[in-house]
Amino acid sequence: MKLCRLLAALAATLSIPAWADEGMWTFQNFPAATVQKKYGVQVTPAWLDRVRTSTIRLSNCTASFVSPDGLILTNHHCAEACLAEHSSKTASLLEQGFMASGPRAELRCSTQIADVLMEMEDVTAKVTAATSGLDARAANDARKKVLTQLEQACEEAAKSDPVHGALKCESVDLYNGGQYYLYKFKRYTDLRLVFAPEQDIASFGGDPDNFQFPRWDLDMSILRAYEGGKPAHTPSFLKFNFAGPKEGDVVFVTGHPGSTDRLLTVSQLLTQRDAILPPWLLRAAELRGRYIQYGKSSAEADHIVEEPLNSLENSLKVRRKDLDALHDDAQLARKAQAETQLKAQVSADPQLAKSTGDPWKQIEQAEQTERALVLPYTFVENAAGFNSRLFRYARVLVRAAAERGKPNEERLREYTDSTLPRLQQQVSADVPVYPELEAITFTMGLERMREWLGPDYPLVRRLLASESPDALVARLLKGTQLGNPAIRAQLWQGGAQAIADSKDPMIQLAQSVDAEARAVRKRYEDEVEAPVTAASERIAHARFAALGTSVYPDANFTLRLSYGTVKGWTEDGATIAPFTTLDRLYERATGAPPFRVPQPWLAAKSRLDMSTKFDLSTDNDIIGGNSGSPLINAKGEIVGLIFDGNINSISGDYWFDAALNRAVAVHPAIILAALRDVYHAKAILQELGAK
Amino acid sequence: MKLCRLLAALAATLSIPAWADEGMWTFQNFPAATVQKKYGVQVTPAWLDRVRTSTIRLSNCTASFVSPDGLILTNHHCAEACLAEHSSKTASLLEQGFMASGPRAELRCSTQIADVLMEMEDVTAKVTAATSGLDARAANDARKKVLTQLEQACEEAAKSDPVHGALKCESVDLYNGGQYYLYKFKRYTDLRLVFAPEQDIASFGGDPDNFQFPRWDLDMSILRAYEGGKPAHTPSFLKFNFAGPKEGDVVFVTGHPGSTDRLLTVSQLLTQRDAILPPWLLRAAELRGRYIQYGKSSAEADHIVEEPLNSLENSLKVRRKDLDALHDDAQLARKAQAETQLKAQVSADPQLAKSTGDPWKQIEQAEQTERALVLPYTFVENAAGFNSRLFRYARVLVRAAAERGKPNEERLREYTDSTLPRLQQQVSADVPVYPELEAITFTMGLERMREWLGPDYPLVRRLLASESPDALVARLLKGTQLGNPAIRAQLWQGGAQAIADSKDPMIQLAQSVDAEARAVRKRYEDEVEAPVTAASERIAHARFAALGTSVYPDANFTLRLSYGTVKGWTEDGATIAPFTTLDRLYERATGAPPFRVPQPWLAAKSRLDMSTKFDLSTDNDIIGGNSGSPLINAKGEIVGLIFDGNINSISGDYWFDAALNRAVAVHPAIILAALRDVYHAKAILQELGAK
Repeated sequence: MKLCRLLAALAATLSIPAWADEGMWTFQNFPAATVQKKYGVQVTPAWLDRVRTSTIRLSNCTASFVSPDGLILTNHHCAEACLAEHSSKTASLLEQGFMASGPRAELRCSTQIADVLMEMEDVTAKVTAATSGLDARAANDARKKVLTQLEQACEEAAKSDPVHGALKCESVDLYNGGQYYLYKFKRYTDLRLVFAPEQDIASFGGDPDNFQFPRWDLDMSILRAYEGGKPAHTPSFLKFNFAGPKEGDVVFVTGHPGSTDRLLTVSQLLTQRDAILPPWLLRAAELRGRYIQYGKSSAEADHIVEEPLNSLENSLKVRRKDLDALHDDAQLARKAQAETQLKAQVSADPQLAKSTGDPWKQIEQAEQTERALVLPYTFVENAAGFNSRLFRYARVLVRAAAERGKPNEERLREYTDSTLPRLQQQVSADVPVYPELEAITFTMGLERMREWLGPDYPLVRRLLASESPDALVARLLKGTQLGNPAIRAQLWQGGAQAIADSKDPMIQLAQSVDAEARAVRKRYEDEVEAPVTAASERIAHARFAALGTSVYPDANFTLRLSYGTVKGWTEDGATIAPFTTLDRLYERATGAPPFRVPQPWLAAKSRLDMSTKFDLSTDNDIIGGNSGSPLINAKGEIVGLIFDGNINSISGDYWFDAALNRAVAVHPAIILAALRDVYHAKAILQELGAK
Repeated sequence: MKLCRLLAALAATLSIPAWADEGMWTFQNFPAATVQKKYGVQVTPAWLDRVRTSTIRLSNCTASFVSPDGLILTNHHCAEACLAEHSSKTASLLEQGFMASGPRAELRCSTQIADVLMEMEDVTAKVTAATSGLDARAANDARKKVLTQLEQACEEAAKSDPVHGALKCESVDLYNGGQYYLYKFKRYTDLRLVFAPEQDIASFGGDPDNFQFPRWDLDMSILRAYEGGKPAHTPSFLKFNFAGPKEGDVVFVTGHPGSTDRLLTVSQLLTQRDAILPPWLLRAAELRGRYIQYGKSSAEADHIVEEPLNSLENSLKVRRKDLDALHDDAQLARKAQAETQLKAQVSADPQLAKSTGDPWKQIEQAEQTERALVLPYTFVENAAGFNSRLFRYARVLVRAAAERGKPNEERLREYTDSTLPRLQQQVSADVPVYPELEAITFTMGLERMREWLGPDYPLVRRLLASESPDALVARLLKGTQLGNPAIRAQLWQGGAQAIADSKDPMIQLAQSVDAEARAVRKRYEDEVEAPVTAASERIAHARFAALGTSVYPDANFTLRLSYGTVKGWTEDGATIAPFTTLDRLYERATGAPPFRVPQPWLAAKSRLDMSTKFDLSTDNDIIGGNSGSPLINAKGEIVGLIFDGNINSISGDYWFDAALNRAVAVHPAIILAALRDVYHAKAILQELGAK
C-alpha cells in the first residue's frame, strides 16, 4: 500500500542498461533528450515548471493540486493521521470514510502541511568554501553551521519576495554530498479534509495484499489548501483524464521519493544487513504482536490501534524485503564490482587519485564504530527506549527550550529558526493521545532497551533499579499532563524557565536523560557521520569525474520526476497484466476485514460497470514518499494515482530491477465511478471538471 | 539460560587448532589419548561406561542420576513443563517452587521420560546395502524402511534381553550420513518432581540475563525415576563434590547436545541465513509481543503465559544470534575455503573423485527447491499455520489412525511401532490446555499463513473464504472436545473408525488439510531431503577419506562427551572471571521481576556466606540439549550443573570459537547452601551424601 516511505532510484551501478526507465530525476537535471529519443515525447521547460508547481510535498507523502481552488489529490493512507485525529474511541473516520457536505464542513488536519517547490538555488560552492581545509569533524560542524546560515539568509530575503511572498528555505544534499542546494517552498499550513472513502475499499486486502499486484484499492483522499481562512488560489494544477492510459503509454511520476540507498558503499550496505535491519525487524514484529493482541481486547482498542498498526505493518514489510534484498549476494557482488571499477578509474588519474584518497576505506572504518554505537544511539538518542508520543513531546519541549537560548547556527539542526514554527504547530496540535497505546509502546521500549543494552548499562540501571518498566510507565502516565495540548503550548511559550520549573514527570524524565542522549549523539556525529560525510563527498566528486552528471541522486524526499510506461511483468513463468477490473473485487470479497467490501459498494453494484479499470502497474522508478503522486501523461494530465509498488519494488531501495520492479496506481476510471456512482460526490466531480 | 536446545560441536573446519578443547564426542570415539596427553587425565573405558549409564536423556534436556534410588538432577527450566502442568490459572509452581514433603508427595510429570543409553550398534553396512544402487529418491525411501525394520527387529530381540530387560531402539545418523547406529535405551516413563526452587532464583535476571555471564542463577530441579510405582534402583549414579573445581581444572560435560550445523555446506548455511531464520524470527518476535500483551491483561494470564513465553524468548535469542553468526562473512569465507580444500583433496584422488562426484553442486540445486518450498512446508506440514496444542493433538490422532493401518515399514517415521507408546502417552496426558492461549497462537498462525502464502493460496482461500481467522478459531475452540484427555484417549483407541465418525471440528480440520500437508511433505522429501541426504553421505565419506574419524559428528541429541577447563575469557578488553559469588546477587536485585530475589533468600541472607561461589564458566563445547548436563571432574564427580552458555556460545551452532565460547554452570557450593540454609532440604541432602 504505502509509498509514504517506500518505492525509488540513482545509478549506483555504473552500467545502466539502455532499456531501463530507471531514475528519480531532479527537475533541474531531467533527461528530456533521452525521453524524446526513446518515446518521441517532448518534455519542455514549461511542462516541467507547470508539473513542479502543481506537485505538493505533504509531511509524509506526495499530492497534487487538482483544481484552481486548492483542491488536493492524495492517497487515503496519506490522510490516515488526519482521519485518526478526527476519530474517537467509539467512532472511526478511518473505517467510515468522510465526505464534507460543503466547504464549511471540511475538517482541519492539525499537523498536515503542503509545500510547493518554487525555486532551486545551487549553493555547492558556498558549502565547499566553508568546509575547505578542515578535518572531518570540524568540517561536519562547519557544514551544519553554513547550511543554517544559508537557510536563515534565504528566508529573510524571501520575506519580501515580490513574486511568491514568504518562502520556506531548506538546504538539500544531492548525490550524497556531491551538490548542495537551497530549495524554496511556498508552504500551506491550513489543510482540510474534503473526502475519503472507507478504509475497507481504500486498502482492500489490507496488509496481506500490501505491496502486491493485481490489486483493487481505491487508495485516494481529497484535501483542500486554505489561506487566510479561505480556499487557496492555486492556478497551477493538473487536470484529470478519466479515460486513463493504454498499455505501453508513456507516463511520468512527479513526487517526493523518501529515501534510497543506491549510492551507499558495500560496507554501508553490510551494516544495514547485519546491525540495523535485524534488531529493527525484531522490535517491529514484537510491537506488531502487542498492537494486534491489544486491538483484539475491545472494539475501542481496535479503533485506537488501527492507524499505528497499519503504519507499522507497512514499514515491517518494507524492511523485511530490504533484508531479503541485502541477502542477494549476486547483487552485492555487482555493487562491489562497480565499486572496484570506480576505484580503478580513480587510480588511473593521478590528480583524481590524489584528491580522492581512499574514502571507501574511511567509510569502512567508520562503519565499525557505527556497529558499536547503533544500539545506544537507537535506544537513547533516537528514543526507541522511550517510545511514546508524550515522551517525544517532552523531548521536543526540553530541547527546544535549551536550543532557543543559543545562536541559530549553534543549535541542533532540527531546532533552527526555520524549523521552529512547524515544531510549534506539531507540539501544540490537538491530536488524541491514548494512554493505553502509550503504555504499550513505552513499556516495550524500556524492556527492549534493557534487553539490548543490558541490565547493567548505566542508564538502564538508573531507570530500572527499583521499578519495573510497567511500574515506571504507569507512574509517568499517571503524573504527566502533556496529553493536554494547552499545557504543551504553555511549556513551549514558557521556554527554559518553564521547563526548569516543571514538575511534570515526563518533562523531568526527558531532562534527566538528555545529557546522555546528547553525548551518544555527539559521539555518533563525530565518529560516524563526520568521516562518512567527508568520504561520501569525495566519492561523489570521483563519480562525477568518471560518469558526469547524467546520473540521478539518491532519493531523499526532495522533488523528482520519473518516466516509464504502463506495463505488467513476467515472474516465475506467470505474466501479470497491467490493469485490474472491478469484477474481481467482488469475487475476492470474504465479508471479513481486510477483504470486506463496504456497504455503499455493495449497494451500488448494479449501477457499476464491472469492466471498469481499477488499479494499474507501470515501470516508473519510485519509492516510499511517492504515495499520492499523480501519474501523468505526456500532456500533463492525471492518468492515475500512485499508491504502492509491487513486492519487487522494495529492493529499489538498493538497486532498480527493470524486469520486475513496478509502480502501482489507482486508475482514474474507478475514481470517476466511485465519486459518481457510489458516493454521489457531485460538487467534487464538478470541481474536477468531470462531465 | 536454556540449553534444552542451545550449546554444541564437529570440526567442519579442516584445521583444528591444537589448543581448542573443541568437540562433542561420541562415547565410542572419545579422544582419550588426546586428553591424556594434554591434561594427564586417564579416561578409561570403565569411566566412560559409568558416566554414560549415569547420564539421562529427558524429552527436552539432559539429566543425571545422583543417588541409587533414582534421584535425578537437572535444570529448573527442564522441569518447567512439569511445573506448569501442576499449576493452575491462580497458583503457579513455577513461581512458588516446590519441595515434596516425602516420597508420596512427589508429583508425577505426565509427559516426561528418562532414557539411558545402554548399547550402541553400528549398522552402517546394513543401511548402505539397502540403498546401494538406488537413485536419491528411491534411496531415501529405502533408507527409512530399513531403519524402521532395524529398530523393530532390535526391540523384538531386546524384549528378552537377559541383562537390561526391554530396551527402546532408535536409529541414529552420525556425521550426516557417514555412520548409522542403533542406540539402545533403558526407558523410565514414570518421573516425579521432588524439588524446584522459585523461578525468581532459578532464572534470576530472566530473559535479559539469558545467555549472559557473569550470572547468579540456581537453575536446578530434582526429579525421581519410578519403576512399578516405586523409586527405581539406579546403581550407576554420580556423586557430588560440593567444593567444586578450581580455575583451570579439567572438566567434562556428558549429555545430549541437541543440534549443530557445523557440517552443512555453504549453500545450506545461506538457505538458513536467507530463507529460514528471517521468517522464523519475525513470527517468533510477533508471538512474543502477543504473549506479553496478553500476560499483562491479568494475573491469571500472566501465569498461563509464563512457561511458553520463557521458552519462546530463549529460542528467539538463540536464533537471532544464529543470524548474527551467519552475517559473519569472514567465518563464511573460512567455511567456503574448507569446502574448497576438501574438494581439492577429492579431486586429487581419482578413485575418490569418481565415487564422490560433485555433491556440493547437488545440494546447491536442492537448496533452490528448498527456498521455494520452505514456506508451504512450514505453514502446512509443520503446522505453523495451525499453531495450537489442540490442533497438534488432532493431527497426531488423525495421522496415527491412518498410519497404524499400514505395515510398520510403510509408515511415516514418527508413527512406527517403536514410537507409538510414547505418542500415546503424550496424547493421553492430563496437561492443562488454555483456550486463551490456543486462540492467540492459532489465530496468529492463520494470519501469518495468509500473509506469507498469500490470500489466494488455495488452502488459505478455502479456510478463510468467508470467515476471519478470529472467527474460525473461536468456532473451532468452542466446538472441540480435544481439551479433555479422556476424549483424546478414546479417539486414539478407536483408531480410523473413530476418526472417520468424529464430529469434532478440530479433528475434521486436521483431516481436511491432511492431504495437502502430506503432498507438500512428499515434495519436500523427494526434492530436498532425498538429494541432500544422498549428497551428504558422499561428502561424509570424502571427509572420512581425507581426515579419518578423528573428528566429531554434528550434535543431534545423541549422547556426547566434551572436555575442557574451568575458564573465563577476555572480550572488548575486559576480562571475565570464571566464578561468581553470592554477594552480587543481592546487590543486583531490584525488587521487581526478573531481578527479584525470592523471600526465602531474603530471609536466609544472614545465615549465608556471601563469598559462596554461585555460577561458573568453562570452555567445554556444548549446545542446547546440554541443559541439565552434569559438569564432572576427572574422578567422575559432579562439580557443576550446566544450564547455559555465554552469548558467544550461540555461534557454536556453526563453528567453535575457542577464545570466546563458554559453557555456564551452577556451582555445587550454591546448591549445597540453598538446600541446607535456604530450603532446609535435609532428606535430599542426605540422599545426595552431603555431610
